[in-house]
Amino acid sequence: MSTAGQVIRCRAAVAWESGKPLSIEEVEVAPPQKDEVRIKILFTSLCHTDVYFWDAKGQNPLFPRILGHEAGGIVESVGEGVTDLKPGDHVLPIFTGECKECPHCLSEESNICDLLRINTDRGEMINDGKSRFSINGKPIYHFLGTSTFSEYTVVHVGQVAKINPEAPLDKVCVLSCGMSTGFGATVNVAKPKKGQSVAIFGLGAVGLAAAEGARVSGASRIIGVDLNPSRFDQAKKFGVTEFVNPKDYNKPVREVIVEMTGGGVDRSVECTGSIQAMISAFECVHDGWGVAVLVGVPNKDDAFKTHPVNLLNEKTVKGAFFGNYKPRSDIPAVVEKYMNKELELDKFITHTVPFSEINKAFELMLAGEGLRCVIRMDE
Amino acid sequence: MSTAGQVIRCRAAVAWESGKPLSIEEVEVAPPQKDEVRIKILFTSLCHTDVYFWDAKGQNPLFPRILGHEAGGIVESVGEGVTDLKPGDHVLPIFTGECKECPHCLSEESNICDLLRINTDRGEMINDGKSRFSINGKPIYHFLGTSTFSEYTVVHVGQVAKINPEAPLDKVCVLSCGMSTGFGATVNVAKPKKGQSVAIFGLGAVGLAAAEGARVSGASRIIGVDLNPSRFDQAKKFGVTEFVNPKDYNKPVREVIVEMTGGGVDRSVECTGSIQAMISAFECVHDGWGVAVLVGVPNKDDAFKTHPVNLLNEKTVKGAFFGNYKPRSDIPAVVEKYMNKELELDKFITHTVPFSEINKAFELMLAGEGLRCVIRMDE
Repeated sequence: MSTAGQVIRCRAAVAWESGKPLSIEEVEVAPPQKDEVRIKILFTSLCHTDVYFWDAKGQNPLFPRILGHEAGGIVESVGEGVTDLKPGDHVLPIFTGECKECPHCLSEESNICDLLRINTDRGEMINDGKSRFSINGKPIYHFLGTSTFSEYTVVHVGQVAKINPEAPLDKVCVLSCGMSTGFGATVNVAKPKKGQSVAIFGLGAVGLAAAEGARVSGASRIIGVDLNPSRFDQAKKFGVTEFVNPKDYNKPVREVIVEMTGGGVDRSVECTGSIQAMISAFECVHDGWGVAVLVGVPNKDDAFKTHPVNLLNEKTVKGAFFGNYKPRSDIPAVVEKYMNKELELDKFITHTVPFSEINKAFELMLAGEGLRCVIRMDE
Repeated sequence: MSTAGQVIRCRAAVAWESGKPLSIEEVEVAPPQKDEVRIKILFTSLCHTDVYFWDAKGQNPLFPRILGHEAGGIVESVGEGVTDLKPGDHVLPIFTGECKECPHCLSEESNICDLLRINTDRGEMINDGKSRFSINGKPIYHFLGTSTFSEYTVVHVGQVAKINPEAPLDKVCVLSCGMSTGFGATVNVAKPKKGQSVAIFGLGAVGLAAAEGARVSGASRIIGVDLNPSRFDQAKKFGVTEFVNPKDYNKPVREVIVEMTGGGVDRSVECTGSIQAMISAFECVHDGWGVAVLVGVPNKDDAFKTHPVNLLNEKTVKGAFFGNYKPRSDIPAVVEKYMNKELELDKFITHTVPFSEINKAFELMLAGEGLRCVIRMDE
């Protein structure tokens, strides 16, 4: 019996207030409207951004809300005007979109769509400014337009990547955000050449995905920088060849790296959000050709500050958002890289939990344990 | 009668002390040593950098010195080991070199040679640490390895570009420094696409050469920014289509340009050396694809400071040195662009003076008059 056009009642993990455990509730999910898609989520994974907005420190708190944005699922039904997706398609919902019509989408270089770029403050769908989720008629806010901590969710078609149906959704779901962010920052933006050296600042999941990008690019040296030495063992599995803990030196990490490499690394990728790491990542690249790519999200009051001679010496600094991938156009090919065994993903998935125990995923992340915890929606 | 191997006595303009008029003197020019070339200078032009080191404020003063670095001439003789230049070759001496062996010369991206990169503090030749110029046996310091304010000069072969002998040296001499610096910053580093918008900060000779690069690239809008409105009329001849004088607004120039362009320019090139202009040039580019290129030389204590979100929004900032041209490999092709009428140079040459009146060239520059004054060495 088709559910298309009907309200679906299903389980969702609702964040009722900041910092409190999520509560599994029965919610109503309205049918998709114009340019929307309703997706049955099979697997979702937890990303720092979910925890950040659940904790809601320093932001406008928006509750009750259904968090979640890294996921894989199957299209259940499509709304009016949706022609390139149909029920049964395997998809990854993405926290940022691609309308395919704005100057950014038409540019070869940008992926920050004017219509559907990430908006953490919005809790409703853009079509009518309303939520598709409710409990007993009371609306529950969306998160990033994805809200994947629900068995069914409604997403704008511009935020849905249609992927190879043979790809295992319990693995490729992590390409929905973090792994693509790090991997793309290296392969699309830093673009190390074969044999070049790459420094990675921050060896969390995104940093290790950036290291995976360096490995795939044939980097000769991958220097991992982190304040937490317990991350070094794990990072070896990701091709990181050398480690620098800034705490072990009484000189700036920039100097340490310049000395290790005889002038600086060829490329650096910053995945911490710390302004000091951003500046060091820039200043440790080689003059003449060094490129630093910033990925981490800084605090509002931070200032990136460097002597302009560093720039005149032909160093480059640029930022990367979602690995510079256009969600609909580019992500399917990243999934293919996994299918071709070019890109390794399994090593990022260190834990899995059933949906009923989703709060365990939060506990693991808050304890700094593991990289990605995949949540199985059918359990 | 060949002068090869002999000391040549000729006229040179000697700077005896900072800020005092140059004095035309008879000097002895020793023969070129290993990897050196002696050049008969036919035309030289005055660049701000000559005036800056003549004025010698805030630097180690190095006098007596023969300044000059934008020039065209003919090889008179070559030293031991020089195989790719011979007497009679038409050449441009360049203030920065290309050894063709160091990592920078071997890199496709860099042009800041380890051996011969610009060194403003050095007053001798690197081969023996001595000067080739003297007056009655007393050495006179070199400047930038070029010292073109002399009828003959000795230059390291790595700082000599061999050019088309049909190119008029009284015109292409300006490609030795300023015009290549500005033009290359746009065409090699900012790389605007046809139809894109470009903002140029600073409408002096280098900025106008950057504008010329934008014109040649097919930019749709070239927005000139300068605090001196008298430069706007001249800049129209260089393809600048719109003008912004920051003094005319009570909001930051960044905001003015973002509003004019509906989100920011596609590319910007900063040619002032003012740190405020550098920051504005970066912040006025469009998110998603904007590239800012810094060319101007900053003060020692300046700090380039911006909110890192500007970078995360996929803007790029990079510096350009000598337009990213490798002196020997690339400059001959820039001369060809002039010969093919692709690049216009004549409009940059607003004055000419005989060598005997070289101080007039300094007066014109100090008064801010004109762009380039070419000095004819034979008069």
